Amino acid sequence: MRVAVDAMGGDYTPQEAVVGCASAARDLETEVILVGDMGQIEAILKADCGGIEQPYITIVHASQQVEMDEPGAMAVRRKKDASISVAAKLVKTGEADALVSAGNTGATVAAAWLFLKSVPGIDRPAIACLLPTSKGQIVCLDLGAVVDCQPRHFVDFAIMGSVYAQRVLGCESPRVGLLNIGAEESKGNEVTKAAHRLLRDVDCVNFRGNCEPDEVFFGSFDVAVCDGFAGNILLKTAEGVGALLVGLLRNELRAASLDDSTREAVNEMVRRSLHGVAYEEHGGALLLGVNGVCIIGHGRSSAKAFVNAVNAAKLGIEGNVVGRIAQLAGAIEDEARAVPQA
Amino acid sequence: MRVAVDAMGGDYTPQEAVVGCASAARDLETEVILVGDMGQIEAILKADCGGIEQPYITIVHASQQVEMDEPGAMAVRRKKDASISVAAKLVKTGEADALVSAGNTGATVAAAWLFLKSVPGIDRPAIACLLPTSKGQIVCLDLGAVVDCQPRHFVDFAIMGSVYAQRVLGCESPRVGLLNIGAEESKGNEVTKAAHRLLRDVDCVNFRGNCEPDEVFFGSFDVAVCDGFAGNILLKTAEGVGALLVGLLRNELRAASLDDSTREAVNEMVRRSLHGVAYEEHGGALLLGVNGVCIIGHGRSSAKAFVNAVNAAKLGIEGNVVGRIAQLAGAIEDEARAVPQA
Repeated sequence: MRVAVDAMGGDYTPQEAVVGCASAARDLETEVILVGDMGQIEAILKADCGGIEQPYITIVHASQQVEMDEPGAMAVRRKKDASISVAAKLVKTGEADALVSAGNTGATVAAAWLFLKSVPGIDRPAIACLLPTSKGQIVCLDLGAVVDCQPRHFVDFAIMGSVYAQRVLGCESPRVGLLNIGAEESKGNEVTKAAHRLLRDVDCVNFRGNCEPDEVFFGSFDVAVCDGFAGNILLKTAEGVGALLVGLLRNELRAASLDDSTREAVNEMVRRSLHGVAYEEHGGALLLGVNGVCIIGHGRSSAKAFVNAVNAAKLGIEGNVVGRIAQLAGAIEDEARAVPQA
Repeated sequence: MRVAVDAMGGDYTPQEAVVGCASAARDLETEVILVGDMGQIEAILKADCGGIEQPYITIVHASQQVEMDEPGAMAVRRKKDASISVAAKLVKTGEADALVSAGNTGATVAAAWLFLKSVPGIDRPAIACLLPTSKGQIVCLDLGAVVDCQPRHFVDFAIMGSVYAQRVLGCESPRVGLLNIGAEESKGNEVTKAAHRLLRDVDCVNFRGNCEPDEVFFGSFDVAVCDGFAGNILLKTAEGVGALLVGLLRNELRAASLDDSTREAVNEMVRRSLHGVAYEEHGGALLLGVNGVCIIGHGRSSAKAFVNAVNAAKLGIEGNVVGRIAQLAGAIEDEARAVPQA
């Protein structure tokens, strides 16, 4: 099992990528291919990881990188030797089994789509992420890969999200909800109303109706599907509100007259409460619908986040997420072909 | 100054509405007209407010009410004597200056739109709400009145939100952001991209570009505009994440070995941190774009929430929010007419 990591993509790379991957490779006994500037990567291995020779680590040089603020898709087309493209091509040629990047999301999606190609039967890729609920976790998708969706894309998302929940979370029959602004079928915008009607009729998905945004966090659904615009709003709102509440709490804590040990105990409680909510613990999002496991890390990924991202890639490979999606998407296509056309 | 309150709309009405309004009328020295079942309202005044005769309180009977789970617009058309319609008509005829309801939101929007009519120059109404930020508050709209928006509706929302921020929050030149999933102008779905181009050219709005959902809570914008679908996702996600985090914290607190007084101190800190986030403190949302002040309370409004809703209505009247919106919308219309048609 070999994971290709774009060592240059992200706010704190290559430093955090190299340190995190060296530790992940050793601890998870997984081969990691670091893709990026050979000189910089070797210098970090030497300075912070005890030497250039590391178990399970190899380096593949790439002379270019996509910056975080570049238009991603265009950068991938122009920079032929960008680290993200070189890493994606390793998966394409079978030299690696999964791709990890914490860099420019648009570039990662574009490179994966361009080099890995789509799973037959899947029209559009989707970024899927695990969010915390009061009872565990929920798979949400799409979180930004497809901003303007057609109703049929929601069916793809429901299939891919269900496979993810089954294979990675161990959910037997994942309860799928359509992210919407009301519980009733008549609620929502034109696209969600049409998507609701389509989802109702998909046999291989356990569709349980609309899921309101607050319900996402209650634990009554295992998968929530939405277009990339709504999903990104959900994700970033959750981040913003979390940061706001924690800031307010810390202000209160500073102002409170507590002795040092109690203050530390409360701080620790806040930290533990946030543990499940922190991006570092998840290892990032999965790009589903492409022919290969592809993990999209948070731009601010730390070394720890890279460890978890490599682990997420490993789980994706072990669960054969891509193969199972291809199987279900193929079955749906066959079904559609079997329906006499009007 | 007279505020007509739909005493029947909401999960805990008429009880909480009557008790809250009796206290608001007395404390704010504001005339409140309770609209609903006369017998029930009188019984509550007698049992819980010290008697039927209350300073500043009058009752107007309505024989019907719209239930929370009815399709709102249809119910308003069918139930001619529904409390929300009777209350709206009091504003229409000038017998009241503002309308308050914590009932079925669709019914409130429909009744306000039907009986109060739109402000000339405003195409669609919008539900505006104050959300907490780390530095104060932000006006967000629309939160669910218009689910499928045209780009030009965002201009109406920007004007109405700016007036609200000026007149009610005392913001001199409100910084308006377009809720979007990226900072760059090129980001977003088709509608937001077109809205961005329109907003750039509106003279009477201090447009500061895109506002990402987490930025909503950072305090760098005073107004965020969005379509009702995205706005409702934002609002309900914030509620859900808030509830999740508080639940996690309370679990940690239960499990921690703290003495009773420390536990109570920490609980109090959590409560205070949430104070600004709680719907009870805001008095609900404002329906903008109709000819009259209209406050939409949270369905779960308590007596305290009704007090704040009546106060919010008072502020809306005093700030002449409706008059100022009409003035700006009229100016924009004149401008548009002055542009030679292609």
